[in-house]
Amino acid sequence: MSELKVGLAGLGTVGAGVVRMLERQKAALAARTGRDIRIVAVAARDRNKDRGLDLSGVRWFEDPVALAVDPEIDVFVELMGGAGDPAKAAVAAALDAGKAVVTANKALLAHCGAELAARAEAAGATLRFEAAVAGGIPIIKTLREALAGNRISRVSGILNGTCNYILTRMADEKLSFDTCLAEAQRLGYAEADPTFDIDGFDTAHKLSLLTSLAFGMRVDAESIYVEGIRSLTLADLEAADDLGYRVKLLGVAVRTDEGIEQRVHPTMVPKHWPIAQVSGVTNAVAVDGDAVALTLVGPGAGGDATASAVVGDLADIASGSGGYAFGAPAQSLAVAERAPMQHHEGGYYIRLSAVNKPGTAATIARRMAERGISLESIVQHRPARNNGDAPATVILITYATTEADVRDAVAAIDADGVIASVPQVIRIEKD
Amino acid sequence: MSELKVGLAGLGTVGAGVVRMLERQKAALAARTGRDIRIVAVAARDRNKDRGLDLSGVRWFEDPVALAVDPEIDVFVELMGGAGDPAKAAVAAALDAGKAVVTANKALLAHCGAELAARAEAAGATLRFEAAVAGGIPIIKTLREALAGNRISRVSGILNGTCNYILTRMADEKLSFDTCLAEAQRLGYAEADPTFDIDGFDTAHKLSLLTSLAFGMRVDAESIYVEGIRSLTLADLEAADDLGYRVKLLGVAVRTDEGIEQRVHPTMVPKHWPIAQVSGVTNAVAVDGDAVALTLVGPGAGGDATASAVVGDLADIASGSGGYAFGAPAQSLAVAERAPMQHHEGGYYIRLSAVNKPGTAATIARRMAERGISLESIVQHRPARNNGDAPATVILITYATTEADVRDAVAAIDADGVIASVPQVIRIEKD
Repeated sequence: MSELKVGLAGLGTVGAGVVRMLERQKAALAARTGRDIRIVAVAARDRNKDRGLDLSGVRWFEDPVALAVDPEIDVFVELMGGAGDPAKAAVAAALDAGKAVVTANKALLAHCGAELAARAEAAGATLRFEAAVAGGIPIIKTLREALAGNRISRVSGILNGTCNYILTRMADEKLSFDTCLAEAQRLGYAEADPTFDIDGFDTAHKLSLLTSLAFGMRVDAESIYVEGIRSLTLADLEAADDLGYRVKLLGVAVRTDEGIEQRVHPTMVPKHWPIAQVSGVTNAVAVDGDAVALTLVGPGAGGDATASAVVGDLADIASGSGGYAFGAPAQSLAVAERAPMQHHEGGYYIRLSAVNKPGTAATIARRMAERGISLESIVQHRPARNNGDAPATVILITYATTEADVRDAVAAIDADGVIASVPQVIRIEKD
Repeated sequence: MSELKVGLAGLGTVGAGVVRMLERQKAALAARTGRDIRIVAVAARDRNKDRGLDLSGVRWFEDPVALAVDPEIDVFVELMGGAGDPAKAAVAAALDAGKAVVTANKALLAHCGAELAARAEAAGATLRFEAAVAGGIPIIKTLREALAGNRISRVSGILNGTCNYILTRMADEKLSFDTCLAEAQRLGYAEADPTFDIDGFDTAHKLSLLTSLAFGMRVDAESIYVEGIRSLTLADLEAADDLGYRVKLLGVAVRTDEGIEQRVHPTMVPKHWPIAQVSGVTNAVAVDGDAVALTLVGPGAGGDATASAVVGDLADIASGSGGYAFGAPAQSLAVAERAPMQHHEGGYYIRLSAVNKPGTAATIARRMAERGISLESIVQHRPARNNGDAPATVILITYATTEADVRDAVAAIDADGVIASVPQVIRIEKD
């Protein structure tokens, strides 16, 4: 039986998971693919660290770029992470040398996906990245292969487990954002510097890859409107609950008359939607095609789940499955006609902290009406009786309107001097 | 650009859907696969029927077997259905001639899957059948390719839209089984003779294919324990609701110490499980692997959804993706060590219609205790006061026990002469 010789750069949780999974499933993978998938060389920072892995007979590289072009390997697996070098240099070198590449590196692909796909094509090499989006959920394969007959109109998902964990705990246990973030950090679900996750950039990177596959676009993470979950309060989540919604950080790419609208922001979704019921670190992706609407739910991170995606890609490569990285020749991928967020249409939740004086409600209602915004509901919570001068909370739910009109109305209300703190605006998705 | 020449047998809803989808997505499919996928010949019963399709330039065959071996075609698509000839003869002939085959025919594969897979291998031909299980949900590809690194412990799903439609309407609208079946027939969700769907055989056929892929077993639909939904009453669904469950017809294949247990039966599942929330004709499949647990939700039937699966298979074939039909050489697939249903362990719901005389409850409780069955709850509904002699409904919920003990206890209770009609027994799955 011929061997598929793998060079693996990065021996963290995922890398170690890949080593163990290939060993554990050796016989089954050989039966499936007709080849022995064998790790012949690795690159990692610290050779002396005890990872609990048997790497006897495996060559060791200090330099991942040297590993990437090693004549002995057929496939280069990049699990170092980071949008720049050495990950980029190593992946580019492997592709240029005609080697297949498997990577879990969404930051690298979000920044350089189009370039790397072109390099792969030029060299006749295969580039695979199932692990880069939604961990163990095979959404890349589903978009690229299974739904090939569909014209996709929308892809959306819970793509960041850290955010979903925080939002789930806030809602279920009535806790503050800060408490839940600290808990996520304690459990290892969030980094010491959580910016990348909670401000939505990680979700945007993943969304940019889904958009490329679903709509035949060049990867362009820069054109995504991004808003994170940092400003969400327990009051917002409780108000959403009262109104029949759950708040999720969604990445959404949707085909509009003006182009592909790509956005990442907290979103109120009806409780009965499958995606509303996805809790904790679990991820979910929903795809709407002209023939099929699918929802896939599964683990978005973790060593084993991510390793499973990497090994699935390796099995495809061992089976001789090729094809374009983004489902079509890099040259043919369209440059996104960015649908401006200001033109986004939908319902809105607006929470205002209104100064407690006569006419405030009338002012707010008038500013909305001036822009033709219809209100589905307006609820004002008076401050406690012993604190009559404190601001009152006003919650508005609008019918479908545009982002521009909402922003404009809120700015006008602010200019009127009737609100006491920064307004909260959350977009609503519904049937 | 080279062509992939397709011969299509069967021009019903799905066949017509495939013709339209290939036309509509022509350019996108060519970009993805590097080939033009073109239907060059069809076989169907009535040449003169108006199907609203442009089949000019497409050759017409009366005999699907003749089409299957036509030298001009590269791929034979079988959408005629039926476990026997001509579907079987045509698929076998195409494979023997070295042609790739795509089929949606679960009955054929459930009966002859192992034989057809062996024929495909012998001739070096590809056999694909994504459309045969759960329509537009890419569960075959997910099991065969994406989860290749996992050791699967369990596959389960709502695989029959007709049954799920009936159960959803009964529960949501408090309707009888007969009313909902009639409505399903009126809407075209159920056949005039609904036996195949509602008695669980269709689910069993699909489950047999999932079992083969998930566990590396030879397809063996005969070894599946099958129980349909015909005996379910609104009272059962309401009792389930009170207890925090929904009743679904599930196909379940699970790895046990004694082998692979395969079963199809009405099942009480906790309301918070994703699968409990799948309503109407929608299908869902859950897979538990050692690295990844996934749930896939989508359309299980319908012309477009099924056509989407067929076209996905055609795109794979056009891309040169090969591999074994059931993920491993037919020779290597294990003959299932059937885990006997009598050894099944789990919780049970038992509804008895008990004759209204002193000592009945004591008799029931004693018969359970004699077999070591612990009761989580026992609820007795007394008959209305003006009908004191009518039977009382007794609902028992057991802790985990074996099928054998439950059957034995119920038989003993029956022999005691304290029950007035056939007992209802529903298995419970929980966390």
